[in-house]
Amino acid sequence: MTSLAPDTGSASREAEESAARTAGGAPASSDGDTAVREIARRAKVASRALATANRATKDAALGAIADDLIAQADRIVAANAQDMERGRDSGMSPGLLDRLVLTPDKIGQIAAATREVAGLPDPVGEVVRGQTLPNGLRLRQLRVPMGVVGMIYEARPNVTVDAAVLALKSGNAAVLRGGSAAASSNRVVVDVLRSALERSGLPADLVQTIDAYGRPGARALMRARGLVDVLIPRGGADLIQTVVAESTVPVIETGVGNVHVYVDATADVDMAVDITMNAKTQRVGVCNAAETLLVHSDAAPAFLPAALTALAGAGVVLHGDPRALEYAPQGATAVPATDEDWATEYLALELGVKVVDSLDEAIDHIRTWSSGHTEAIVTRDLAASERFVAEVDSAAVMVNASTRFTDGGELGLGAEIGISTQKLHARGPMGLAELTTTKWVVHGDGHVKP
Amino acid sequence: MTSLAPDTGSASREAEESAARTAGGAPASSDGDTAVREIARRAKVASRALATANRATKDAALGAIADDLIAQADRIVAANAQDMERGRDSGMSPGLLDRLVLTPDKIGQIAAATREVAGLPDPVGEVVRGQTLPNGLRLRQLRVPMGVVGMIYEARPNVTVDAAVLALKSGNAAVLRGGSAAASSNRVVVDVLRSALERSGLPADLVQTIDAYGRPGARALMRARGLVDVLIPRGGADLIQTVVAESTVPVIETGVGNVHVYVDATADVDMAVDITMNAKTQRVGVCNAAETLLVHSDAAPAFLPAALTALAGAGVVLHGDPRALEYAPQGATAVPATDEDWATEYLALELGVKVVDSLDEAIDHIRTWSSGHTEAIVTRDLAASERFVAEVDSAAVMVNASTRFTDGGELGLGAEIGISTQKLHARGPMGLAELTTTKWVVHGDGHVKP
Repeated sequence: MTSLAPDTGSASREAEESAARTAGGAPASSDGDTAVREIARRAKVASRALATANRATKDAALGAIADDLIAQADRIVAANAQDMERGRDSGMSPGLLDRLVLTPDKIGQIAAATREVAGLPDPVGEVVRGQTLPNGLRLRQLRVPMGVVGMIYEARPNVTVDAAVLALKSGNAAVLRGGSAAASSNRVVVDVLRSALERSGLPADLVQTIDAYGRPGARALMRARGLVDVLIPRGGADLIQTVVAESTVPVIETGVGNVHVYVDATADVDMAVDITMNAKTQRVGVCNAAETLLVHSDAAPAFLPAALTALAGAGVVLHGDPRALEYAPQGATAVPATDEDWATEYLALELGVKVVDSLDEAIDHIRTWSSGHTEAIVTRDLAASERFVAEVDSAAVMVNASTRFTDGGELGLGAEIGISTQKLHARGPMGLAELTTTKWVVHGDGHVKP
Repeated sequence: MTSLAPDTGSASREAEESAARTAGGAPASSDGDTAVREIARRAKVASRALATANRATKDAALGAIADDLIAQADRIVAANAQDMERGRDSGMSPGLLDRLVLTPDKIGQIAAATREVAGLPDPVGEVVRGQTLPNGLRLRQLRVPMGVVGMIYEARPNVTVDAAVLALKSGNAAVLRGGSAAASSNRVVVDVLRSALERSGLPADLVQTIDAYGRPGARALMRARGLVDVLIPRGGADLIQTVVAESTVPVIETGVGNVHVYVDATADVDMAVDITMNAKTQRVGVCNAAETLLVHSDAAPAFLPAALTALAGAGVVLHGDPRALEYAPQGATAVPATDEDWATEYLALELGVKVVDSLDEAIDHIRTWSSGHTEAIVTRDLAASERFVAEVDSAAVMVNASTRFTDGGELGLGAEIGISTQKLHARGPMGLAELTTTKWVVHGDGHVKP
């Protein structure tokens, strides 16, 4: 189990994206549209070589990529230093700089993760369905690569390798658009990936960047229907909304998590406190972290004093409804919650807290405010757990477990390119299989339709 | 095996859509946008009742729908007569009128098909993946309904029942936008469906029409992201392109088929003639009918005289490249082919014919011009068949079988809501499973992430 992007997400993704837009930024070419379409066309041509490549070829190329990342770590670090300097000069926050930085150690981790992906089973060629029909037609529905995968993401150069490696392993070409604040790093990283591919006998155009064409280039990518088979935006809500609104290429929406923990009337108090603390504080700024705590009024007197004390002790700012605030301990930073709080993915040490009078009220609150990523119930009541699982319409529903487990690595997918919060094609963590499509192959012996 | 929409498609879908736009048409409400969003919201609420309904409840409702369609056949036929009269007055073609008409006999067939769908297995609740992790977390990925399915289609009132029945069986609410030329029929049919649902104890709002809100209403449906989970356009290329370009709701593209038959050097001539004739002429105007015939130059002298004579005898107009035209028999209507011919889905007794010098040239032609629906190879050469299957990037690839088998009923899916020509979510015929999504359900015992 490995994840090239363990716990992606950022403490302030919108700020990151905004910084990425302003910090430096490659000049937009006036004919960027044509250039980007040409890049996508080259990707499509290159993808054909990979679609019929066997696993050994693909894994050897991933091995070459890992080798070259390590061999060229100095060059990558030097390019990254330019991005870091520009970032510092433009006032980028320490959190964003932390995501931007590449050290020899971090490059070593990325190379190791690349080798782990090479070790995963190949999704291509799996027979999803198959049968012989009464008329003798022999059917197979086979898993095949998508073709060209477009990724639009933020200033995290590790995602450049991540996206390319997962696309290649699943037989696809990748067209990458990273945050411009990481443009120097991405340029060198893509160069390393391309030369490793060539050295392995595969087309370099399996990995291309359109960073040089700025935001018009990104828009051209979103409109390259027929050349790009799927577009995966990874980042904050703003980025994702823009891609959804502007794309004609099919999009998989990822990662916005307004995640709820509901503590039912019968919950074990210690378990509920542990799960709440883990979901909110084990790692802040990730999409599977809890943003709102719902508490049944029967559980509130025993649970909330303990939970709110623990949360406040960990530095969590509490946004409570009037009943929840009654339990806030002395010294806690606790303020009244508004509807805006219920809608907010804080990605920070802040938490909405609300007391509800029934399971129905909890489910209604989740239906109204959730982004459909992950919700958890803590309960000892079988019927309550079953209703929660059946009626909460999210990608993942946890019973007596932390929301932090919604992750490709944790759920046994081996790797993860993002977490889909939409219902089409993929829902929840997306692994290698989610980067493929299927093809019906039908063998007959001169069969015609009567 | 049943298909509520066997061989959908139309001899001239664009003409149909155009007629649908002009013939009558309900007045667009100035607040249609708000009204359509409210309809979608009601559908979302209603869908919750169905998401947790068991199969017996759903099948009973389908049985009630079948009963009521028959019981109210007179009322439906009377409403349909109004549409037919308007259609005739507006100069609708006989082919389009044939698709619009509802007779007691046709209603009986629709009711019978509804009962057959009730007899199909329920896709909801299927465990797609499942395991217990080393840490004891118990995972299941369950098949669950999408929620709200939007359908935008043309003036075929049978599709109204078709779409609603398949949506209901798979646990979804349906919001329908039919061609305005069928508005009277659709209004009554939807009324019958709704009262049957109520009689079965299910919310009537599981089936709603937005026909009254005209094209602005259709646009509002395309923008109802978050309320509508998937939008399926069914009809001609114009309709589908409009929906793809204007929707923010995820779309599944269906049905445009620029379909190829390739006769390889080693093909059995009789088999190749049979398959070509079946693919082109067994039923015209359907998306899985052949539109271009590619012939290896080694096969041309033996195959083309026989094939073109048979095609011309069936009234097929031949659009040939110079080498193919040499084989056109006396009396055939044969004209030189242009690039436009290679791009055209004729949906009529017309066929492009081209001689190629290699399998590679055939594959290149298909890559350039195909819509990715279905292609067939006729060959006795194993290696050629394997390369064709591997390198042709279409939803269905046939070896020694007619392209006409790309159909949910023929491929054993039991029913079909359309044929996807995109790669995301569903590719090829879409049955009940393709109208569902999945949900991860994770059971722990207080598990927190270390």
